[in-house]
Amino acid sequence: MSTPHLAPPTPFPDWMAAVQARTEHALARLLPGAGQTPARLHDAMRYAVLGGGKRVRPLLAFAAGEISGAPVDALEVAASAVELIHAYSLVHDDLPCMDDDVLRRGRPTCHVEYDEPTALLVGDALQTLAFELLAREPIAPPAVQLEMVALLAHASGSQGMAGGQAIDLASVGKPLTQPELELMHVLKTGALIRAAVLLGALAGAPMDAADRQRLDHFAKRAGLLFQVVDDILDCTASTATLGKTAGKDAAAEKPTYVSLLGLSGAQDLAESLQSDALAALEPFGERAERLRQLTGFITHRRY
Amino acid sequence: MSTPHLAPPTPFPDWMAAVQARTEHALARLLPGAGQTPARLHDAMRYAVLGGGKRVRPLLAFAAGEISGAPVDALEVAASAVELIHAYSLVHDDLPCMDDDVLRRGRPTCHVEYDEPTALLVGDALQTLAFELLAREPIAPPAVQLEMVALLAHASGSQGMAGGQAIDLASVGKPLTQPELELMHVLKTGALIRAAVLLGALAGAPMDAADRQRLDHFAKRAGLLFQVVDDILDCTASTATLGKTAGKDAAAEKPTYVSLLGLSGAQDLAESLQSDALAALEPFGERAERLRQLTGFITHRRY
Repeated sequence: MSTPHLAPPTPFPDWMAAVQARTEHALARLLPGAGQTPARLHDAMRYAVLGGGKRVRPLLAFAAGEISGAPVDALEVAASAVELIHAYSLVHDDLPCMDDDVLRRGRPTCHVEYDEPTALLVGDALQTLAFELLAREPIAPPAVQLEMVALLAHASGSQGMAGGQAIDLASVGKPLTQPELELMHVLKTGALIRAAVLLGALAGAPMDAADRQRLDHFAKRAGLLFQVVDDILDCTASTATLGKTAGKDAAAEKPTYVSLLGLSGAQDLAESLQSDALAALEPFGERAERLRQLTGFITHRRY
Repeated sequence: MSTPHLAPPTPFPDWMAAVQARTEHALARLLPGAGQTPARLHDAMRYAVLGGGKRVRPLLAFAAGEISGAPVDALEVAASAVELIHAYSLVHDDLPCMDDDVLRRGRPTCHVEYDEPTALLVGDALQTLAFELLAREPIAPPAVQLEMVALLAHASGSQGMAGGQAIDLASVGKPLTQPELELMHVLKTGALIRAAVLLGALAGAPMDAADRQRLDHFAKRAGLLFQVVDDILDCTASTATLGKTAGKDAAAEKPTYVSLLGLSGAQDLAESLQSDALAALEPFGERAERLRQLTGFITHRRY
């Protein structure tokens, strides 16, 4: 940990609130207007994205951007692109043919508020918008932006998030080993968390290979940590606190870290992942202070 | 039209078959292998893309590439990206909550052959793969590839293909005027056809603004032409010939050019769109011969 006199001036909760507000504002600006044709689709896209969520991925992108001194304008676009991918995945995951969920971020899910075909198109179009923004907005040299697109796409597709979702589907009611469970989560949640960190860093000054590898190691540990804590919260927190249906993994007989390791085993794993993630940040000194604070937040969050 | 001695050496049907085979081969190479984890998802992605389809969009990309002298390797990637977007849209359009169709390219639709959640993920991951390929494969200067990504994304999203689909959903059983019907088709089919032409041209030497505008005018007319002919075929051809359910637009009370203009009115419109499209190609001389032949094929196709 950096010494106290090197700590950033803004307290962490204020920094977090500022980044969340900035992300909300950027998304509101980058999404097509609600009145724009086709109005119902655009209205539903805004409903699915705006006004909620912890914005963990944008927070990670902004925190990683402090390491490379990334400009805030570039971070807004990179963070929004990652968040749009996340939002699309939630809309599709909630559909009747997937998790069939009615509650998300404390509100009716998109297909409940609108209808099923609209929700399908909302997810499709949010994904497209993520890539359109990364390619259209001039936020970095073209070769770097192209790398961002490739990285985000790989993290989202059949060998990333969508692939993890496919393994998740196939695993219901089936006992998984810890390595199998880890592969599922590395793809389903970890890949996009990792992309958020790397895109934030890419939005700034170029990094040497060693620094990039360290940051990548951090990003992978942080992704897994996030999922382990999610599994713990799914069995310890209430629906009201989470803003989404609690206990549904257990109800669906989905394998989780808690079902595999028990509650205290999962908590031990979270602690050890946190230590490993923090160790990877050490060489960055005070530039990584926000990432350190965020790692603590991810580990100890209550929702 | 170019004079006979300037005609390309390969007869058009042979050129078409060669491009279709090349596209099939490129897609088979660029899609993740069927055995790769998660195997069921990758298997279903290959099922949805390979072994069928007229490959109209790849044909347009290759034909447009002749105007700018684009290398075949670059055209393979650009054409594959556009075709993956098209394939994803078919998989999602066929889902029970959309058109609920069981037949596509003469075979069971993806959700019938596999299952609904898998088909949802197949569409999602095919879209992602399109953008991953365009960003990952080194086919043009980075700034040009970035333009390709932005163009394809805009053509596919809420202000392109997905937006047209949303208008289509909202229009069932509602009488549309010709301008409203045209807007729907410009977005639903036209935008991606246009992207195919422009991406093919972008894969080669840079074009001046005037040439680009001419090609864009051609692309817009060709997109509308394709849809008008589709509407004609939907009411004149059989399910066996089309390889998809015939007459379903009329059955679903969807507005079509035939329902609006009558069969002979729609045929007149097709002829006039063809003339307009061909006129835009005139300044390109023999370099546009494949685009001319393809326009004729699109107008007079029987399936």
